[in-house]
Amino acid sequence: MNKDLNDLRESLDNIDNAFIFLLAERFRVTQKIGLYKSEQGLPAVDEARERVQFAQIERLARDRGLNPEFASKMLRLIIDEVVENHEAMSGAEG
Amino acid sequence: MNKDLNDLRESLDNIDNAFIFLLAERFRVTQKIGLYKSEQGLPAVDEARERVQFAQIERLARDRGLNPEFASKMLRLIIDEVVENHEAMSGAEG
Repeated sequence: MNKDLNDLRESLDNIDNAFIFLLAERFRVTQKIGLYKSEQGLPAVDEARERVQFAQIERLARDRGLNPEFASKMLRLIIDEVVENHEAMSGAEG
Repeated sequence: MNKDLNDLRESLDNIDNAFIFLLAERFRVTQKIGLYKSEQGLPAVDEARERVQFAQIERLARDRGLNPEFASKMLRLIIDEVVENHEAMSGAEG
């Protein structure tokens, strides 16, 4: 295996590890949000807020030269996982 | 809107912005890998390497208390986008 390719792959592995740590932190925050919403009797999903999140991520993706549709799919996957976690915690529908 | 909720959402927005910057850097690295592979006549997709990547991300996700299946889906989405970008650059099949 070539040294250059191994070197680049090591960077990828570092970045992917950083993703996992960032995701772990993100789920800590959404757990707090879920708890807060449940205490306040707020609905788990806030569609207006979601629209803002998607608009933000798409704009930022575009600014950084990424495909905004791809960024949007990533956020959807993350939010769906958050909702699934909340449902698993509360036993409630989304 | 409550101050606590706004505060937590600000953390989420910061984390999501960090995701985008990390993704932008990741695509810089995969572009270099794509270029290197193309110069060396190596195939775009290396299934053995992919298996290692998925095993690594799932193990790390598990270590951080994340759903490994979710982490795996994220990586799949990212790799598919990489392959799509390479195809768009080279006009070649994956």
